[in-house]
Parts: sequence; structure tokens; C-alpha cells
Amino acid sequence: MKTIFKSLSISILLVFNLHVSTTAQTNANTTSGNLFSAGYAAGFIGGLYDAYYPYKQLKEHGNFGLGAPAKLDGELLILNGKLYQTQSTGKTTLMSDTGKTPYAIVCFFHADKVYKPGMVLTKAALFHYLDSVLTNINGIYAIHIKGSFNYVKTRAFPPVEQKPYLPLAAMLNKQHFFEFKNISGDLVGYKLPAFMEGAHISGYHFHFLADNKEAGGHMIDFIASDITIEVHTLNSYTMDLPQNDDFKNFDFKKDRKEEIKSVENGKKQ
Amino acid sequence: MKTIFKSLSISILLVFNLHVSTTAQTNANTTSGNLFSAGYAAGFIGGLYDAYYPYKQLKEHGNFGLGAPAKLDGELLILNGKLYQTQSTGKTTLMSDTGKTPYAIVCFFHADKVYKPGMVLTKAALFHYLDSVLTNINGIYAIHIKGSFNYVKTRAFPPVEQKPYLPLAAMLNKQHFFEFKNISGDLVGYKLPAFMEGAHISGYHFHFLADNKEAGGHMIDFIASDITIEVHTLNSYTMDLPQNDDFKNFDFKKDRKEEIKSVENGKKQ
Repeated sequence: MKTIFKSLSISILLVFNLHVSTTAQTNANTTSGNLFSAGYAAGFIGGLYDAYYPYKQLKEHGNFGLGAPAKLDGELLILNGKLYQTQSTGKTTLMSDTGKTPYAIVCFFHADKVYKPGMVLTKAALFHYLDSVLTNINGIYAIHIKGSFNYVKTRAFPPVEQKPYLPLAAMLNKQHFFEFKNISGDLVGYKLPAFMEGAHISGYHFHFLADNKEAGGHMIDFIASDITIEVHTLNSYTMDLPQNDDFKNFDFKKDRKEEIKSVENGKKQ
Repeated sequence: MKTIFKSLSISILLVFNLHVSTTAQTNANTTSGNLFSAGYAAGFIGGLYDAYYPYKQLKEHGNFGLGAPAKLDGELLILNGKLYQTQSTGKTTLMSDTGKTPYAIVCFFHADKVYKPGMVLTKAALFHYLDSVLTNINGIYAIHIKGSFNYVKTRAFPPVEQKPYLPLAAMLNKQHFFEFKNISGDLVGYKLPAFMEGAHISGYHFHFLADNKEAGGHMIDFIASDITIEVHTLNSYTMDLPQNDDFKNFDFKKDRKEEIKSVENGKKQ
């Protein structure tokens, strides 16, 4: 790992700055450069797994993102406007848009920067590299990583059954993990600033989808071998709040920052 | 005060529930029931007073709200799509929409509930009453109070001059206060849930505009005599983040909750 990391810092990276003009985008400010969230992360992670937001409506706010299916039945990924569900069995399927989600974040993805690192990168090395190019620590970045991976580890939760649901951090022992070697696919995700923690999950957050669309899940770890990184810089975010009793009665006073971190990393802190 | 408060709790309030159907609204979800924010409250209160968001663009997101003029030159109120500035001299003027704001929050206001308390109410008694009818503690409420007041106290800040600007809480000694007796006008504002603190100012927040449009400011205190309260329940909020260096370099790690409270109340905690 150390060798990879060092070679990164001294290598010349192939970086293309496309600088797509924002005026060329056809959507209004609230949709083109906007991160739309159905649900509030701290609420979802606290146990609000009942679906409330129609996928059809979600697709009006973006074609690229991630989230959870109804009742936490696996992991959700949205790519090119299509919905993919990876269940705890590992089964990955194209979902119809007739259902609803308890939590999902989407944007209309338009790459404004493209990077081709051209080397093997661990997750830590890639995040370090991204930190060096995504210089606005208070910025919102949508990130699409496509290519081949020496290794990918993902996870998916099994569906919850009876209420009251446990908080996500109390269900980490129920996660199913999946490991893949020499696999091609997409990482779909975001880098969000620390001040958005609570409303969202701050830092890096990716879901994975294999090229054959038969494997995926919440990304836990990877070693990328030959990838292209597209970045879309966003300038606003919208939070849609569930208008149901579970959300109305949710206790936001509890500090769930540690819980959020556990859930994102897939392990107890 | 105690007498007023008691009489409130035993009186029969004239309450009209209009229940305006949301489907009757012509705007999409992101604008009709959406609270739009140009700027992030913790950033603004921390000293980001340079205007960045055009008023013309702001009006595309709402016709009802409050905020600050460029360089904190007084207080801003938006009513029926018109912009009013109350400066620290007390001068209140209709502003053109050619300028920009450093911080403003707006929505398209459609009353879904109307209340007529029909009695004299102090600020504390009115907020207590509103707490009793706006029962969703995690809800976003736009509130328009119109009528006659026995007493209104407002404040306005003088404009800042040279950078670096002081945080708002360090400039409370520069506020100018204004007191009015027997005045009619509008209180334009919001009740926002605790979990939105930081992104917004949580709790109640109102700006005042006299009927003759010649007085106003950030509402500090009042005694209402004959008012109508219109409430619009919102279900989402959008945060537009400034894409300038001041925002990019802003330190969000500092906990500004106490500062926000001081600024809202106009006095040190």
C-alpha cells in the first residue's frame, strides 16, 4: 500500500479539464447543479426505513445517485436514470420505477472535470488523490468512477421486518459482504463537506455496480487498476422531508455522527 | 403578561383551516412547498456579508421571505415579490431587484391555515400559541402575520466597511433599535426545526414592515392587538452555496449556535 501511495505523489497524472460551461446545461439551477435528497440522512440512519418518496418523482431530480430500497432491502444505485438494487443475497437487479424509497440522493450528472490516474490505486490512495484535486473543502462533488478494479468489496443490508426498526449502526452484524476480483464497473457517489453531515453523510460515499449489472452494493473497499474519474461540481442541495408521523416524531437531538461513520465504513468505530 | 397568557389558554380561538390542496398549486414541488436559501446561515452570521446571489434569481424561488442587503446594510424583507430594505437609520425603502444579497430565504407563500387569535398577545404568548397549533416539531412553517400591534420593536445593522468583517455576534453593539406604538403592518417569517440550525436559524424568525412601508427591521419584540396569522407548511428546503473564495475558505468547524441565538434575539446570551 505504501508503495502505491508514494508512487502517486511523484507521478505525473493525466488530467483533463473539460470545463463544461454551466450555461450549456438545459436544466434550471435547482436541478442541474443541485443535489436532491429524498429523506434526511440522520433520520434514515436512525431507523426511518419505510419508503415514502416515489422513484418516478426522484428521477425528476436526477439520473445519478445512491440510496436504499424500501425497508432497507439492500442497496440502491442510480446510473443513467436506471435504478439498480443489490440485495443481501448479492442478487442485483434493474428495478422498476413504480416503487418508493426511504432515502436517496440524486443529481443530473454532467462531468465538468475528467481525471485518468493511470495507475493502480487503493481506496485510501484514490481518496487522497481526489482530496488533492477537489480543493473546495466546502464543495459538493458528484463523482463517477468507471473502469477496471483488481478488487472490490461491497456490502448490502437484509430487509427489516417488524417495527420498531433498529438504527442502522445497531444492525452492522446483519450486513452481508461481497468480494470481487478483476471486475469492471461503476462507482457512483459523492464527496460532501463536513457541514452537511446529518442532512447527508459527509466525506466520500460510493455504491458499486458491475459492468454486467449482476453485482453491486455499498462500496467498502477497492483497488482500482484502470479507471476514469468524472466529477460534477454542484452548487446547491435540496432536502425533501418526509411528511409522515415517523419523521415528525423523530428525535434529532441525539448526536448520530459516530453512527453515521460506522454505517458508512461498515464497521463499529 | 400572565393574564394574557392565561386568557389565551382558555379562550376559544377562531381558527380557519383552509386546507388548500397542494395539487392546486401551479409550481413544481421544488418551488411551491420549498424553502429556498441563498447562502448558509452559519456562514452569513460568521461574516460572509458580501452579496453574491441576484435578487432577480431569488424571486424565481419565492415571493415571501427575509434576509440581508449587500454588506449587511440593514434588514431585508420580501413580501408579495417586492423587496424592502430597512437601514440602520430606520429608513425603509422599496428596493430594485438589480442588486444581490449575501443571505436570504424565500418561498412561494400559499396559506394552508389561517388563525385569528382575537386578543392581545405578547411575543411570548403568540409563540406559545403557535407552538400549540404548529405541532410538527420537525416541520418547516412559513408564517405571515398581518394586523395591528400595540407595540413593535425592531433592529437593523449598519453596513460593514472593510474586510475582514466581524462575525455578526461581535457587532451587536452596532445594532440600531426602533420602537413603534400602535402600528399596523406585516410580520414575515418562519418557524424552522432545531435540526436545521446552522443551515438556517431555527425557531421563530420574523422581519417587520409597516403598512405605510416606511418602517421595518428585524423583529425583536411586539405586542399584537388584532392580527391574522397565515401559515404555509413547507416540505423541503434548498440551500444555494456561494461559489466564492470566502465561502470556500469558511471554517464551519466552529460551533456558532450560541452566536446565532444572540443575533436572532439581538442580545448577548
